[in-house]
Amino acid sequence: MPHIALGNDASGIISLFAYRPETARPLSELAEVLLRGPSSLSRGERELIASYVSALNDCEFCTTSHAAFAAAQLPEGIALVDQVRADLESAPVPAKLKALLRVAGAVQRSGRDVRPEDVAAARAEGATDVEVHDTVLIAAAFCMFNRYVDGLGTTLPDDTAEYAASADAIVSGGYLAILGRPEERAEA
Amino acid sequence: MPHIALGNDASGIISLFAYRPETARPLSELAEVLLRGPSSLSRGERELIASYVSALNDCEFCTTSHAAFAAAQLPEGIALVDQVRADLESAPVPAKLKALLRVAGAVQRSGRDVRPEDVAAARAEGATDVEVHDTVLIAAAFCMFNRYVDGLGTTLPDDTAEYAASADAIVSGGYLAILGRPEERAEA
Repeated sequence: MPHIALGNDASGIISLFAYRPETARPLSELAEVLLRGPSSLSRGERELIASYVSALNDCEFCTTSHAAFAAAQLPEGIALVDQVRADLESAPVPAKLKALLRVAGAVQRSGRDVRPEDVAAARAEGATDVEVHDTVLIAAAFCMFNRYVDGLGTTLPDDTAEYAASADAIVSGGYLAILGRPEERAEA
Repeated sequence: MPHIALGNDASGIISLFAYRPETARPLSELAEVLLRGPSSLSRGERELIASYVSALNDCEFCTTSHAAFAAAQLPEGIALVDQVRADLESAPVPAKLKALLRVAGAVQRSGRDVRPEDVAAARAEGATDVEVHDTVLIAAAFCMFNRYVDGLGTTLPDDTAEYAASADAIVSGGYLAILGRPEERAEA
């Protein structure tokens, strides 16, 4: 049961977005820019980083959601997402992405844990400065989203098919679409 | 020295906002809504929560910045901010705010560390559901901002007077003003 009365039956962050539309808007815009905006990292790669950090934070809703979003947008599908979560070092991901995932793992512990050599290793594998920037901010943002979802005790979906349905919605319409049209929000 | 070439001499998050305006916009809008938007928690109280969490995350730029912003908007000034950072339990803050700061401290460790009794204690002191919500999201958001600032190795101001100048700018103009006018951003 959530720690506060959210007034809706949605699960995870969707229930929080419905409760507080004022903060839902910038949070969704951040997710849209970071995970789907123009980038030399694919949408699947960025969702993989999001799911990996969420798993490190032990946030089941975000881990499973973003694993589904990554799987839907990566050629390798859910198998790769599961391998990264189980053991990053042995997972068959390209060297650049693996180095960026290591940076993300450091950020999850603390911003102060990112060492110059972690960034140099990513750069040696071809990562650009913008890719390093976006990796750090994706990892940092999920340290927020995960704490928001679990800190208010939100619920999990009753039916795990909801994760796949959310993946379809995100892949086709993006993160702002789940807020609904302005007139729908005004009536809420 | 920052981990990536930011192309500007600003410090802390200001240097990151100048580097990546696409993400600066939703991040600033989130700060504006959370820390300055309509709320039954005063702006000073919310900045105090932000500074407290930043101190727990050992992020000097954010701790000092938001301590200055809190001090500028609390009747008790910097003395109270310093007392809360030194020892929350003995600090002379009202019982409701102290209970909310305890919730924020739990969120800083992990969203899963927030216990129903932490929220019940805040409610017993008069905290509303929206106040609990906003406290959790402020704490979660600073777990992001702190990691973003330190994870990219941003610099501190050369002159600590910059913190007071930032406080003047935030108190008078808010978080969106520091992004500059659209035409200035377009030229950047």
